[in-house]
Amino acid sequence: MTLVSASKAAGLREVDAPHSLVAHFGAEHPLQMDAGISFSPLTIAYQTYGALNADKSNAVLVCHALTGDQHVANDHPITGKPGWWQTMVGPGRPIDTDRYFVISSNVVGGCMGTTGPASLNPTTGRPYGLDLPIVTIRDMVRAQAMLIDHLGIDTIFCVVGGSMGGMQVLQWVASFQERVFAAMPIATAAKHSSQNIAFHEVGRQAVMADPDWRRGRYLEEGVIPTKGLAVARMAAHITYLSDEALQSKFGRKLQGRVAPTFSFDAEFQIENYLRYQGMSFVDRFDANSYLYVTRACDYFDLAADYDGSLALAFKGAKTRFCVVSFNSDWLYPTAASRAIVHALNAGGASVSFVDIETDRGHDAFLLNIPEFIATSRGFLDAAARARGLPPAKTRAS
Amino acid sequence: MTLVSASKAAGLREVDAPHSLVAHFGAEHPLQMDAGISFSPLTIAYQTYGALNADKSNAVLVCHALTGDQHVANDHPITGKPGWWQTMVGPGRPIDTDRYFVISSNVVGGCMGTTGPASLNPTTGRPYGLDLPIVTIRDMVRAQAMLIDHLGIDTIFCVVGGSMGGMQVLQWVASFQERVFAAMPIATAAKHSSQNIAFHEVGRQAVMADPDWRRGRYLEEGVIPTKGLAVARMAAHITYLSDEALQSKFGRKLQGRVAPTFSFDAEFQIENYLRYQGMSFVDRFDANSYLYVTRACDYFDLAADYDGSLALAFKGAKTRFCVVSFNSDWLYPTAASRAIVHALNAGGASVSFVDIETDRGHDAFLLNIPEFIATSRGFLDAAARARGLPPAKTRAS
Repeated sequence: MTLVSASKAAGLREVDAPHSLVAHFGAEHPLQMDAGISFSPLTIAYQTYGALNADKSNAVLVCHALTGDQHVANDHPITGKPGWWQTMVGPGRPIDTDRYFVISSNVVGGCMGTTGPASLNPTTGRPYGLDLPIVTIRDMVRAQAMLIDHLGIDTIFCVVGGSMGGMQVLQWVASFQERVFAAMPIATAAKHSSQNIAFHEVGRQAVMADPDWRRGRYLEEGVIPTKGLAVARMAAHITYLSDEALQSKFGRKLQGRVAPTFSFDAEFQIENYLRYQGMSFVDRFDANSYLYVTRACDYFDLAADYDGSLALAFKGAKTRFCVVSFNSDWLYPTAASRAIVHALNAGGASVSFVDIETDRGHDAFLLNIPEFIATSRGFLDAAARARGLPPAKTRAS
Repeated sequence: MTLVSASKAAGLREVDAPHSLVAHFGAEHPLQMDAGISFSPLTIAYQTYGALNADKSNAVLVCHALTGDQHVANDHPITGKPGWWQTMVGPGRPIDTDRYFVISSNVVGGCMGTTGPASLNPTTGRPYGLDLPIVTIRDMVRAQAMLIDHLGIDTIFCVVGGSMGGMQVLQWVASFQERVFAAMPIATAAKHSSQNIAFHEVGRQAVMADPDWRRGRYLEEGVIPTKGLAVARMAAHITYLSDEALQSKFGRKLQGRVAPTFSFDAEFQIENYLRYQGMSFVDRFDANSYLYVTRACDYFDLAADYDGSLALAFKGAKTRFCVVSFNSDWLYPTAASRAIVHALNAGGASVSFVDIETDRGHDAFLLNIPEFIATSRGFLDAAARARGLPPAKTRAS
């Protein structure tokens, strides 16, 4: 079948046969999407770590960022690299898999096993491509709630995530406040700014400008818009790092030479690095998925669903919040987190707010930054006590 | 001839027959380029405004930015729009064409009449394409010096420019300090940062990813890499505006609709704006020129030519400086201008420094911002008095 071979050629074998648990939802249990469509069938691919306790009170839901996935704390099935959040999730880590039952699912619109544009549309026998309805952050959260129901869990101990994952955290509380005991939105915003939309639009235009995109039908035609997707990733990647981080890591250092050669080669290390980021990305990510997940962020404006009042989105929530920002994050800057905190305060929620000082920029939430790790541990430990969970095992240090 | 028709098709008729004055330099007067090449023939296209006085002491050289050109204060021959700096240059303006003889030339590597990659290589009978040596900011300045010699001018009253134009201003003083009475580097930096290089590299990769780029030979092959160049422009354009400016101008406003349509159309105004910026750019600018001018900026690191000491670059300069930055400029931030000021101070130069408060971002230097206009006027008026130039005409207000 053309589909399978084409998606395999694209390194997208995870679309069809993910190295994950999967939950299937048929026509009797459709996903009600913001685009006005009652969507089925839906497959959700997910990973779990640790064990659910008897009263099902120790579940932690980790929501992934734009191009992340459910492989939080295990080696990635395509790249072979360690899970993307092993600094935070694992035995003895803040999200302690000896204490908590950790769940992470690939978002709707993704390409790691959950239904997305590369998935087979059973009606046509072809990949959905752009026939998949536009996905919103709320749709992603609705799908996660279906998974949580499927797992028989009523209340999640903590919903946590950075960047687009943080948007899902906020949406979880807005949509299902009684089901979220604690929440950690990290390096995120309650709405996508004009500049955020602008960078995403550049990425989408880069993909769509590639003639191999074929109006989204590339998988059937046996091609992949690798060049466009790589350019999109390069542009986005700049926004994930701070000016200072780039300066200290690369500066104006030349790549493998002592003097400039006066050419268009990757003369500077930063150029080589970006080209590598672009090229390696296309091996693991579907171009149409990139369009969907960026679009989902662009549509995110939580207050807009509550008459423009973010405080109303959180009104009455008993959820304990820990809002985390990084002072050198210019993609979702500290001010965006502060706006969330103000809204939570206005709604009378329990909230602590930590702005972590680092020069690492937005991607700091993926790094082993001691203050961030300690903050997360402290918040989760206190929440666990309040939830009546047994204390952490004593570990040999 | 293929060249002419192809470049005309690309809206590049200005390459061959500019609506400008031109100076030709033959083999007897080559341009000594940093790439180690003695380059000829060289054509420089330029505009002048006002009249040179008898002792040739009233010349102002305006250096243009990345995709700017010599059409500072006259309608643009391709777009028909007003000159790009009519806020600053004209009768009664800070760069008063009733007082000063204003010169502006298209940079080497450009596409408005000065020799660039779209120009005919007389050796091959084809456009240079990437056979043109890499151009540096110093090469641009050397070419300008050849033009100034050609015009019989010894000392320039003031060299002024923003962004890449400001880099040329700094290079002018470093290379020819005795020939520059006053200098105004605006919204610029003495070196390109890692982030600056990164954004430029994204733009180049977008151009080169377009199959119609044809390894730079598109003009001969009758195609134009419009899509890649448009994406490059879109990405760059975001860096020219501040987050705040985008938010206040566009925010999350929808384009011609009252509710989201859940599609990949230009749903938000910012998307529509960026697409327009991309599409209109390709009508007036050559894709290979874009590679050359971005590369010139990337190579700019003035201190590197002086054992890493920016102060040494300006040592002994009698030039009066006015350094201007804009506090919301994140492309060449205030700190970059401050570094220039520190180096000038260390070298004992005469320098005033103004950081203008505005939310308009980098492109503020192109706008009618009263504090900026007043600062420029004040500096130039004082410098003119010091230079012994007659006072400005009294104008009916």
